[in-house]
Amino acid sequence: MARRPSENAVLSKIARVFGSFGPGIRSGKKGASARKVSLGVGDDAALLQSIRGYETILTCDWFLEGTHFLRDRHPADSVGWKCLARAVSDIAAMGGAPRCFLLSLALPEDATDAWLTEFLRGLRRAAVRFDCLLVGGDTTRRDQILINITVVGEVPNGRALRRSGARAGDLLYVSGCLGEAEHGLRLLREHRGMANRRDPRLQKHLYPQPRVALGAWLGKTRLATAAMDLSDGLSSDLPRLCAASGVGARLNPAKVPHLSGSVDAQKLALHGGDDYELLFTVRAEKARQIPASFMGVPLTGIGEITASRKIIVVGRNSRPTVLEPRGWDPFRKYK
Amino acid sequence: MARRPSENAVLSKIARVFGSFGPGIRSGKKGASARKVSLGVGDDAALLQSIRGYETILTCDWFLEGTHFLRDRHPADSVGWKCLARAVSDIAAMGGAPRCFLLSLALPEDATDAWLTEFLRGLRRAAVRFDCLLVGGDTTRRDQILINITVVGEVPNGRALRRSGARAGDLLYVSGCLGEAEHGLRLLREHRGMANRRDPRLQKHLYPQPRVALGAWLGKTRLATAAMDLSDGLSSDLPRLCAASGVGARLNPAKVPHLSGSVDAQKLALHGGDDYELLFTVRAEKARQIPASFMGVPLTGIGEITASRKIIVVGRNSRPTVLEPRGWDPFRKYK
Repeated sequence: MARRPSENAVLSKIARVFGSFGPGIRSGKKGASARKVSLGVGDDAALLQSIRGYETILTCDWFLEGTHFLRDRHPADSVGWKCLARAVSDIAAMGGAPRCFLLSLALPEDATDAWLTEFLRGLRRAAVRFDCLLVGGDTTRRDQILINITVVGEVPNGRALRRSGARAGDLLYVSGCLGEAEHGLRLLREHRGMANRRDPRLQKHLYPQPRVALGAWLGKTRLATAAMDLSDGLSSDLPRLCAASGVGARLNPAKVPHLSGSVDAQKLALHGGDDYELLFTVRAEKARQIPASFMGVPLTGIGEITASRKIIVVGRNSRPTVLEPRGWDPFRKYK
Repeated sequence: MARRPSENAVLSKIARVFGSFGPGIRSGKKGASARKVSLGVGDDAALLQSIRGYETILTCDWFLEGTHFLRDRHPADSVGWKCLARAVSDIAAMGGAPRCFLLSLALPEDATDAWLTEFLRGLRRAAVRFDCLLVGGDTTRRDQILINITVVGEVPNGRALRRSGARAGDLLYVSGCLGEAEHGLRLLREHRGMANRRDPRLQKHLYPQPRVALGAWLGKTRLATAAMDLSDGLSSDLPRLCAASGVGARLNPAKVPHLSGSVDAQKLALHGGDDYELLFTVRAEKARQIPASFMGVPLTGIGEITASRKIIVVGRNSRPTVLEPRGWDPFRKYK
């Protein structure tokens, strides 16, 4: 019988894969992030230096086998990429820059070898891409793979984007194209076996790109009055932004950027989750300053904020209707 | 059929129970912690103000049904207390003060009512006790209860206690009595049904007390050269402190404070987990400054640090032997 892996062996593997981008950060990496972390993996906890003039942003996210991914469908490296990317997206939604993260990992014994290696490879790729250092975590054994990621970010004092700043008359924008990730998930479900990680139609579902640069720009320029990231779907997330701001919205679904070619692309764009695009509001008089695209990502006006607290959908040839939240809610049956 | 709870309903319940000690922190609490958090639950992420002269400590911990607690044995309020207490213990081990925490909670539908209420009550009690504000988290649905807690603490610059500072000749100390929590777990296993939450023999297992004041004192006075908290058991944790410091230790098991009355109390004290006492080292010439007890908690010398990297157990009438790590390792079968 093979020797059981010990917790120390799992920790060593993490340290090995992350190399100078994790535990070795004290002597290794020379980037901006490295100087701000004085103690990483291996002690009771991580130690971060305070940065004058900045606030700390803190967020955490579940990523669970069976709920958020399937072991026999989702390549392990995409699980690694995505679990970090979606937590980083919360930092982007606040206008912040990611700084470091904690990895909580519960693994079955049969996932401590090849699966773990591939997972860590995807996670490391995301960590390097988002300049976000692994500084600690917790590992344990479990019959299914459980992941929880905490990301710490930083934002200049007073420049954080919140959900609560939208006012009547503000214009409503989204970045990118909505429904793509959901469409990818649908394709992945229709086929058996492991997803092809190079299939272009699956990229947004497998390897989402949090809009860090856009969020930071919206915060720095003070152009956005409110912002959030779209994780559960526009029809579920827009009401949250409106509730936080004490306002409503009038949404033009025809304007929401969606896939072409899919039968119900507009529905996917309204209710599909997992896009990690930014939803934000801008004073009408500043709308001219919002470019058609930012670093290659389209920015599109899709409606406006209203004083009435309802979320109304207006069509060209139909009566206005109230938008029903039909995005992802883990406590309801999935669509 | 009862209406399914929505994610929003779970979040509302958390907000209601925590009241001014969580989401309402902006206007509510007047304590030290409140002034340092500018935005709590309800946005994409939490926002913390930097505190000049302090470093930030970051730690996270799993607390999983079936692995760390049993739903039919452990009162929900003790689950709430303990999941926060054990993460706070990592902050104590660094010499820091807890500041705020994130709660990641995955729940079966049948735990969203009475269980959740009791759980939140215990969690809130711990949060108030440790002056640690709930500032965010993530909730989802799952067939078993999964908890992950991230705690943020603060420590004056350069005063953090690390595992790596022990040197040959330093004396080795522990706080409190070891093996008590394990003894409680054993009793709890021997009886059927829900544990009696008032049973004094179960208190350390159900409601551990992280040594926050002791850790802060050891850091402030610079008396400890190294420190860590005992979560997996002395025989598993001492080797970690020694490895981090590049040293060994000579341990006198007869000196390790243990329960009286139990047959194998000394074994429990060496290998039992979950005590959350502090293990620390002190230069021999400063040993006089370590009192016999600190705020009612005994401090006991149990051995010394050696240059040889081995961990040796010395008995009064027996030959020295090498200490085998036999504490908690989630990747090995539990004892």
